Amino acid sequence: MVTRRTLAVGLIGYNFMGKAHSNAWRQAPHFFDLSAGVRMKTICGRNRAAVKKAATKLGWENAQTDWRRVINDAKIDIVDICTPNDSHCEIAIAAAQAGKAILCEKPLARNIDEAEKMVRAVKKARVVNMVCHNYRRVPAIVLAKQMIERGEIGDHIFHFRARYAQDWIVDPNFPLVWRLQSDPAGSGALGDIFSHIVDLARYLVGEFREVCGVMETFVKQRPLERNRRVKAKVTVDDAVTMIGRFKNGALASLEATRFAPGRKNSITLEINGSTGSLFFDLEEMNRLKFFSRRDPHDRQGFRDILVTESTHPYISNWWPPGHVIGYEHTFVHTIADFVRAVLEGKSAHPTFADGLQTQRMLSAVSRSAKMGKCIRA
Amino acid sequence: MVTRRTLAVGLIGYNFMGKAHSNAWRQAPHFFDLSAGVRMKTICGRNRAAVKKAATKLGWENAQTDWRRVINDAKIDIVDICTPNDSHCEIAIAAAQAGKAILCEKPLARNIDEAEKMVRAVKKARVVNMVCHNYRRVPAIVLAKQMIERGEIGDHIFHFRARYAQDWIVDPNFPLVWRLQSDPAGSGALGDIFSHIVDLARYLVGEFREVCGVMETFVKQRPLERNRRVKAKVTVDDAVTMIGRFKNGALASLEATRFAPGRKNSITLEINGSTGSLFFDLEEMNRLKFFSRRDPHDRQGFRDILVTESTHPYISNWWPPGHVIGYEHTFVHTIADFVRAVLEGKSAHPTFADGLQTQRMLSAVSRSAKMGKCIRA
Amino acid sequence: MVTRRTLAVGLIGYNFMGKAHSNAWRQAPHFFDLSAGVRMKTICGRNRAAVKKAATKLGWENAQTDWRRVINDAKIDIVDICTPNDSHCEIAIAAAQAGKAILCEKPLARNIDEAEKMVRAVKKARVVNMVCHNYRRVPAIVLAKQMIERGEIGDHIFHFRARYAQDWIVDPNFPLVWRLQSDPAGSGALGDIFSHIVDLARYLVGEFREVCGVMETFVKQRPLERNRRVKAKVTVDDAVTMIGRFKNGALASLEATRFAPGRKNSITLEINGSTGSLFFDLEEMNRLKFFSRRDPHDRQGFRDILVTESTHPYISNWWPPGHVIGYEHTFVHTIADFVRAVLEGKSAHPTFADGLQTQRMLSAVSRSAKMGKCIRA
Amino acid sequence: MVTRRTLAVGLIGYNFMGKAHSNAWRQAPHFFDLSAGVRMKTICGRNRAAVKKAATKLGWENAQTDWRRVINDAKIDIVDICTPNDSHCEIAIAAAQAGKAILCEKPLARNIDEAEKMVRAVKKARVVNMVCHNYRRVPAIVLAKQMIERGEIGDHIFHFRARYAQDWIVDPNFPLVWRLQSDPAGSGALGDIFSHIVDLARYLVGEFREVCGVMETFVKQRPLERNRRVKAKVTVDDAVTMIGRFKNGALASLEATRFAPGRKNSITLEINGSTGSLFFDLEEMNRLKFFSRRDPHDRQGFRDILVTESTHPYISNWWPPGHVIGYEHTFVHTIADFVRAVLEGKSAHPTFADGLQTQRMLSAVSRSAKMGKCIRA
Repeated sequence: MVTRRTLAVGLIGYNFMGKAHSNAWRQAPHFFDLSAGVRMKTICGRNRAAVKKAATKLGWENAQTDWRRVINDAKIDIVDICTPNDSHCEIAIAAAQAGKAILCEKPLARNIDEAEKMVRAVKKARVVNMVCHNYRRVPAIVLAKQMIERGEIGDHIFHFRARYAQDWIVDPNFPLVWRLQSDPAGSGALGDIFSHIVDLARYLVGEFREVCGVMETFVKQRPLERNRRVKAKVTVDDAVTMIGRFKNGALASLEATRFAPGRKNSITLEINGSTGSLFFDLEEMNRLKFFSRRDPHDRQGFRDILVTESTHPYISNWWPPGHVIGYEHTFVHTIADFVRAVLEGKSAHPTFADGLQTQRMLSAVSRSAKMGKCIRA
Repeated sequence: MVTRRTLAVGLIGYNFMGKAHSNAWRQAPHFFDLSAGVRMKTICGRNRAAVKKAATKLGWENAQTDWRRVINDAKIDIVDICTPNDSHCEIAIAAAQAGKAILCEKPLARNIDEAEKMVRAVKKARVVNMVCHNYRRVPAIVLAKQMIERGEIGDHIFHFRARYAQDWIVDPNFPLVWRLQSDPAGSGALGDIFSHIVDLARYLVGEFREVCGVMETFVKQRPLERNRRVKAKVTVDDAVTMIGRFKNGALASLEATRFAPGRKNSITLEINGSTGSLFFDLEEMNRLKFFSRRDPHDRQGFRDILVTESTHPYISNWWPPGHVIGYEHTFVHTIADFVRAVLEGKSAHPTFADGLQTQRMLSAVSRSAKMGKCIRA
Repeated sequence: MVTRRTLAVGLIGYNFMGKAHSNAWRQAPHFFDLSAGVRMKTICGRNRAAVKKAATKLGWENAQTDWRRVINDAKIDIVDICTPNDSHCEIAIAAAQAGKAILCEKPLARNIDEAEKMVRAVKKARVVNMVCHNYRRVPAIVLAKQMIERGEIGDHIFHFRARYAQDWIVDPNFPLVWRLQSDPAGSGALGDIFSHIVDLARYLVGEFREVCGVMETFVKQRPLERNRRVKAKVTVDDAVTMIGRFKNGALASLEATRFAPGRKNSITLEINGSTGSLFFDLEEMNRLKFFSRRDPHDRQGFRDILVTESTHPYISNWWPPGHVIGYEHTFVHTIADFVRAVLEGKSAHPTFADGLQTQRMLSAVSRSAKMGKCIRA
Repeated sequence: MVTRRTLAVGLIGYNFMGKAHSNAWRQAPHFFDLSAGVRMKTICGRNRAAVKKAATKLGWENAQTDWRRVINDAKIDIVDICTPNDSHCEIAIAAAQAGKAILCEKPLARNIDEAEKMVRAVKKARVVNMVCHNYRRVPAIVLAKQMIERGEIGDHIFHFRARYAQDWIVDPNFPLVWRLQSDPAGSGALGDIFSHIVDLARYLVGEFREVCGVMETFVKQRPLERNRRVKAKVTVDDAVTMIGRFKNGALASLEATRFAPGRKNSITLEINGSTGSLFFDLEEMNRLKFFSRRDPHDRQGFRDILVTESTHPYISNWWPPGHVIGYEHTFVHTIADFVRAVLEGKSAHPTFADGLQTQRMLSAVSRSAKMGKCIRA
């Protein structure tokens, strides 16, 4: 019997995304044939007590407070970056220089400059790299991609519209957490959630040609976390709206907001093509709605496809038809594909180059909003 | 017993809108207490045989081929204009000069210039005037308006987004009907359907401050109606997208398209405010979805209000709870309100002045799209 | 030009159903090519002032308080019975003897005995007869019927399940109206609403072979209408549930209740066949959901057919695609079909014989509930 | 630091349920504070190669082919039974005699006799016991239970209706797997899926008083698995329908079928009470619909509660609001509660006694169906 390779992983960050990635590293080998073992070697965070606790809870062999030691650990093959946005660049470049395969949470960086450096670093080091836009691996989204590629909604795409809506900061007394400060976060809804729908747009329809943006910060000041009686300026956007065109001629309409009461983590998207339409709603993530003009005329209607058949993307690894999966599974799919990529030595989409392209779009939208005019993407 | 006044009506136009308005004139007295009788005196159209047939079918006393004779008929109190857009201006001005109360189908005119003339004419003549934006009188929309005014979604509105989507010209071989020619129609999706959601936006949220538009004609040439082997240029837009701001600080995102396969006559709109959200979908026009942040936290959810209670707008005139109404009823409500306005001698919203304001918005969106920049509304 | 025949109608009853039927008589000629004129001659009710007012409001030429005078009016061709259930039998028999075509509101009668007499009378008199089960003429239901007949859900039907749910008497202080008294009403939910789904079951699937029923009166006593401080016994059922078998082997599951808070006038039905399923919900009456096992396996899903295409049943008479119709339209369709039947001299479904068959089913369910065992239908 | 206890588990069975339970044993410690360690010691199955492979894949320390050795392993604290129904009884009794805590997949047994023996065994041995009806621990179901207990739908419950629908054996050429044979399975839809909704009914509403059942086997013969050219008799039911009453006076309507094309693993349930209603659909398992008659009258509507708030049952252990969970999570919740029960030394619901009660209901339904009459539950 041939000895199977084992890939050792170091994870930097242990909060929300750290928990989601840890789960994915743990689960992937139990549901997917990875052709390699996964060793959850080190988790890293600045607070020693917290990271130790996280290591135990999340299933890592050991905890570390200095990310450089993770990167310099010769036994580690993969570095998974789940830290706030302001450290992505430095860590990723160091990891590339150390020859590690890199998975980096989105957004890739805070700005184009950082993203370009990161792309240069991974190219120079020729390391496998990927940005974790987990929604690319919702089975219904992958099915949509397949259907578009097979021409099931036609040769021409007319419209792509997407909206990512949340409501967690509607309360003006919600404090000024790091995600609401430009220094660590880079931007607000723009980088955090608008980036996801830009990524989906690029994945499903292609590159943008032209964009017009309007952005807003509805609540200008918020209480500090550490002292709620003091308010300070919110330095990021609360909402982004954008219209524009894709290179293939389709119109785009995108919106991301944290100010939509009742929308918790809602991504809706609709694509209209010359022979049909697709509709997706993340709050019903196991479904894809498909209208086909090729159905007999008086039997046409949006078909509500429950994407849980074994022939649907990723599903054969999970449960029988009708037994739905959830949010965390998108990370398991991402990790499974990433591991395969690492073994094959070629990057999985979306790569850092994709992340840079998305960053350029975010920057274009932001500049357009400031200038009040449409600009080339 | 006091003799009740009877209002005599002359309707110009006998096609789709003529049929819808005729039905409303017939039905209103049977379901609403109008305080006046309605006499469906004259219907008018250029094709004698067709208009005579329409008169019989639609319930008019007599048919006429010259609209000037309708306007000069001293017995007629109300002129209802359902012709293609290029004749609205001339007919309305003549009707105003003849002292008639005027109901005019939307869009009020083909451009600002026409609309301004019409407003001046009705002001000068002091005649009751109204634009028929029937969707203002969907009970669920009126309920939404009431809820917004009562502060049920809060003091601040963050987002208004609306989309009017159809699919009737997706087929590139669909012929070049009048609605696809700029001369009679003025514009395409812009005036025909985008105008409706602009009107709803103004009704529900208020005036716009700034708009950015992107417009497109996907199918550039189409077969002529009279000779399908010859193609000619499509001179109007197929789709309009717009983002911008309202004067009250809310962000706007609007879209109208005739290129969304599977969307037949779909208006969806969502409004997010500081304490709640409202969602409406014309394809489920008897419903209004309402999310309230004032509900107990773990009992919150979009409430699916079936707007068929006797306490809901207009409903007591129709059927018991759960017995839904349809598209045509919105015209009956419009006529009922218009008749009341005529009796009271004051215009009902949306007035010609509203129509002009909407026209200004359409024009602004169109100019913005041409210039590639955001402009004041 | 040939003189077109005109059919004169006498309507007995002027409340809820009287209003719905009057509307249908008024509207049918404006939307359907009836091949005959309709003259709304007489409306009849016991309260002179009320019926006179109704005549004006609903569009009848004159009002009458004695139904026998309507029936003896030689000018009247059609008698339309909208009275409470306890007078259906007497009026219908008299009308038959007078040679009138008869449309009778459901349920046909209070019991089998009455229904049998009525069937004998119309057979003997050879008059056109029809029971007004308006839901048979919801376009989506007719489409479902067509699809079943064309084998679109397969050769074998496995399940038919329907539920008619309302909530108007959940409040125990709601008074003892006539519909809650066995003498005028015959039964409660059973005759009033369960009869509708029995009729739909027979229309869509066929005859029943065997039924088991369970019935309940949740609120045993209610205040009198005329003196709310006095309570009296509720002598009809509040809810009926039934399971059983059709002659074709399908299983049946039916339920009718007036005790389902939030369900206002909800009929849901689902039919499962060997190659597909159909689902309908009256609260979304312009839609039919269709699942086909013949669609490609990983593109299967319930298709949400918006039944508003001109090729769909009845729709070409109304509005363009996506412009929905409502509750009252089902009566217009019924009247249009009935007028055609009268002209052709043959009864339209459901006939009085159908009404009797439904009555037999209601009786069987009621007996089964009392005996606690399944019985032949 | 106090040494935390560790519970060692032996799992019998490694197919569908084995996979689901294994996942739950692996995941529970990472998401829940269990107050004990979990050691996944042994997995057991008859096919040595297959069980060894399963051990590796599913995360068990070792594999075993003789279940008696698991039970006799003194190091094992918990026996988890995921075998076909015909071995539940023997294994559970042996496990009880060995003093193990026992988790047994549903249905508890093939018949009342077996179930009674099992209950006696666990009572005698005083071991912690639980039947794995995982749907009791869907957060939305637990929320429904809480709401009912707090009187949010009122003091009286009028209706409970549930349907469990699948479609995996609609094709008559689907082979005669063990679940379609009475010897190993005991029954068909009855024990496999109807048992789940009986369990939910008992959990949410209480005990049944009276039941009437109708059962059917639509496809009487099926090809053998090992030789598809030979057909043999199907000895279990394909579908079960039932109506009846609960002890508290509510009416019941339940149905389970494997013959509903398009329904993959659909459980819908609705409960109507004197002040409100609840609706749940497993295909949208993160949602609970709630209608309250206590809402202001013209703001009433089914509230679509997205059960993903940290204050909702189990959710704080998972992800932020709007990040949905899936099928497998219900098993994790079950295991977490079971572990807590084991540590506290008292059984968690549903206990074996509950399983027996459900078995009695299944038996009553089955007998009622055979006798054609309603019987005491």
